Amino acid sequence: MQADIGILGFRVMGENLARNMESKGYRVAIYNRTSSVISDFMEGLGKGRNFVPAMSVEEFVNSLSKPRKIMLMIKAGSTVDSTIEQLIPFVDEGDIIIDGGNSNFEDSERRYKYLYEKGIYFVGSGVSGGELGALYGPSLMPGGAKEAWESIRDIFRAVSAKAGENDEPCTAWIGFGGAGHYVKTIHNGIEYGDMQLITEVYAIMRDVLKLTYNEMGDIFEKWNDGVLKSYLVEITRDILRTRDTDGEPLVEKILDTAMQKGTGKWAVISALDEGEPLSLITEAVYARVLSSMKDQRVVASRMVPYIEKSFEGDKAEIVENLGKALYAAKIISYAQGFSLLASASESRKWDLNLGEIATIWRGGCIIRSAFLDDIRKAYDNNPELSNLMMDSFFNETLNDASKGLRDAVILGVRNGISLPAMSSALSYYDGYHTDRLPANLLQAQRDYFGAHMFERLDRNRGEFFHYDWSGEGGDTHASVYSV
Amino acid sequence: MQADIGILGFRVMGENLARNMESKGYRVAIYNRTSSVISDFMEGLGKGRNFVPAMSVEEFVNSLSKPRKIMLMIKAGSTVDSTIEQLIPFVDEGDIIIDGGNSNFEDSERRYKYLYEKGIYFVGSGVSGGELGALYGPSLMPGGAKEAWESIRDIFRAVSAKAGENDEPCTAWIGFGGAGHYVKTIHNGIEYGDMQLITEVYAIMRDVLKLTYNEMGDIFEKWNDGVLKSYLVEITRDILRTRDTDGEPLVEKILDTAMQKGTGKWAVISALDEGEPLSLITEAVYARVLSSMKDQRVVASRMVPYIEKSFEGDKAEIVENLGKALYAAKIISYAQGFSLLASASESRKWDLNLGEIATIWRGGCIIRSAFLDDIRKAYDNNPELSNLMMDSFFNETLNDASKGLRDAVILGVRNGISLPAMSSALSYYDGYHTDRLPANLLQAQRDYFGAHMFERLDRNRGEFFHYDWSGEGGDTHASVYSV
Repeated sequence: MQADIGILGFRVMGENLARNMESKGYRVAIYNRTSSVISDFMEGLGKGRNFVPAMSVEEFVNSLSKPRKIMLMIKAGSTVDSTIEQLIPFVDEGDIIIDGGNSNFEDSERRYKYLYEKGIYFVGSGVSGGELGALYGPSLMPGGAKEAWESIRDIFRAVSAKAGENDEPCTAWIGFGGAGHYVKTIHNGIEYGDMQLITEVYAIMRDVLKLTYNEMGDIFEKWNDGVLKSYLVEITRDILRTRDTDGEPLVEKILDTAMQKGTGKWAVISALDEGEPLSLITEAVYARVLSSMKDQRVVASRMVPYIEKSFEGDKAEIVENLGKALYAAKIISYAQGFSLLASASESRKWDLNLGEIATIWRGGCIIRSAFLDDIRKAYDNNPELSNLMMDSFFNETLNDASKGLRDAVILGVRNGISLPAMSSALSYYDGYHTDRLPANLLQAQRDYFGAHMFERLDRNRGEFFHYDWSGEGGDTHASVYSV
Repeated sequence: MQADIGILGFRVMGENLARNMESKGYRVAIYNRTSSVISDFMEGLGKGRNFVPAMSVEEFVNSLSKPRKIMLMIKAGSTVDSTIEQLIPFVDEGDIIIDGGNSNFEDSERRYKYLYEKGIYFVGSGVSGGELGALYGPSLMPGGAKEAWESIRDIFRAVSAKAGENDEPCTAWIGFGGAGHYVKTIHNGIEYGDMQLITEVYAIMRDVLKLTYNEMGDIFEKWNDGVLKSYLVEITRDILRTRDTDGEPLVEKILDTAMQKGTGKWAVISALDEGEPLSLITEAVYARVLSSMKDQRVVASRMVPYIEKSFEGDKAEIVENLGKALYAAKIISYAQGFSLLASASESRKWDLNLGEIATIWRGGCIIRSAFLDDIRKAYDNNPELSNLMMDSFFNETLNDASKGLRDAVILGVRNGISLPAMSSALSYYDGYHTDRLPANLLQAQRDYFGAHMFERLDRNRGEFFHYDWSGEGGDTHASVYSV
């Protein structure tokens, strides 16, 4: 009996996704380069279950029913290319190769084209939710060859997380080419932002308000019952309450150096390419980098006068304001992220459905939250929304919550607490809501030293003027040597 | 009589650089694809001067003495490649092709290798200073084939700006491959930052303090006599004092939408690649993007409650504090930029001389300032300095000036004035001087949902731990699916 789908690559994510699929009634072929991983599994968790172990790529491919559905759960990068080359001799036209790794969307774009010319359908699918998500229901963001969707749709829906009142599956066809991995990249960027925001709130609670870990745990528990309800707030509650063997909070023992890999960076590079200000996520990436410079920081901390930590007013009120600050900054971050998605969708002709993307992030993935329903509603109300902050619900929410953000930033600045994500959220918010920014001066400077010309408020857009500010320049203007 | 050097491309920068070279006693061959530009010039400014006009590439190359020195002053991008291809049939081994455009350093790296294999010496040289700089003395940042340096050194020194007590030429050999254009890219990024900081100070003066343009002009004049002395402060003074034909400040008539081209973006992408927090320059890039969304901003500005602008205390004192804020933020921005230069130098093995780079930026280029002498001194004192903020002069300066920055950010935040560059400077400053950041929580989150493991404060670095926070995970850890 042929298998319904094959999983190639059997590290934790591959294994868990295979178990998830099998638990939903699918017969799953499994293969790993180091075959002992497969045989060990078949003697353990896989014993007596509906798996088809394969000891070679050929055997693996031949064990699959047609059109073959092969899902790669391997390290992103050149390994994906070499694995695809190993598969090509054995697969047939119409077969489907799915890359479930954290691949760069440009690579997926390339692989899609490469395989399409051979009649093979490539799907680059974001898989979010970590190891538990893979096992119990991830958020799946497939894109690539649309022809493949009908064949994989039922499996993807079955294994994905379910969310909302009607238990809607957290998966949908994203778009052609690299669209699936692109959306996963932006998801990961947003995840960077959400995590950084929570740590900034934690820094104020820990270092300024000097709350106990029990108090902090209770606050996050309370927040998880309201508008901030989300997986990350929930696990933060658990983490803050977790004690080490000596009874002390375990998180206090953890070294404050965060790692960062490619996807946050890719999101930022895409923002630069698209000309979209993704400042909060960018600051979150930089904050991780800065955290990793532990040795420098320890030395540097001894070179500045100590700032006595203080606050004015009622602690409970400040905490409530912090909740607003977190909510406001989160809305602003998603506004930036979705604005980037809209730009990329247009420039790459992906025709992304932004409301649907919000929907499939409601379950399974790391950024899952109640709040994504509000984003869906905003796009349901107006699919052409230029920015989430323009939606009336978010506009009104921010009109109130932004005050909390303002107070939190001032509290941090006064006390020497670094709040890069919150500060950038506020700068963007204030800049976005300013009709006249000071960039007129910047345009004057550019015209002064580079003859780059400017437009005028009292003339039509598209009419450009040069002024000989120094009295030394000619009447030439440099369109080439722009900076 | 053969020409000493040839300029290919005769837009404003090429023309001005050719005139500069000729004025220093060099015989300069000139060529432009549209030959009328050359003939017009020879009947005008070039008449009776020491130029050798060429009407074809072949004639142009043949007019040069060996080793031929050909400087391209053309649009960056594929035009450089096609022009190099046009030159190849006519040049000989040992000849030198210099690209003086705003090329991407990765392209220069590639062109250097490509031509080196043919025995042709490629030099990618940053040329900074705009049209006036090109004419009266730019800052020149040549890198590429070291073999070429001896042949071009005298010309480069002659035409470059001079700075310092001994009129030192603002040029030096930067490093091999793409090093010259890389340093120019970071220069441009720093320029973005400097300009953005000035506009933020201007926003506070204009919108919160409601100073007149005469008052603002006087402040910038005063600042230009002190530690802030720089070309950009100087031209800002002039700009603020410039009146339109109706007597109103001209800058008030200019549309507040700034343009941005590639180099700021390249600096940021390099920072992401190198894992260096270049937050201030990044925010400056984003601020330009945000400024360009004028239509959205105008609509959005009407959707939020107006914040009454106010300040407490003495206006003159606030202005003095603003000067400190600008100075502090500028130091922080250069600290980020030079830290990036150090990283790139190491990872690319360019062996950049950071003190010398500061030196050659003292004249000719847009960011020229007195302050660069202090940077040179810092690297003279310690060439291995890990961060400029660690230098005792800058450390002490920031211990004082950072208070002004703190006050300025609070003033902006309270009044709804967007200060992305200043805010990011302060976040970085505070983060860099914090021994224990809240990133321990972030590491706990990553371990919770992705089994990414963490280090402990009470254990050695390099020992990694995983905790089963939810009680549901296995003992596996995911090193592959990192986010």
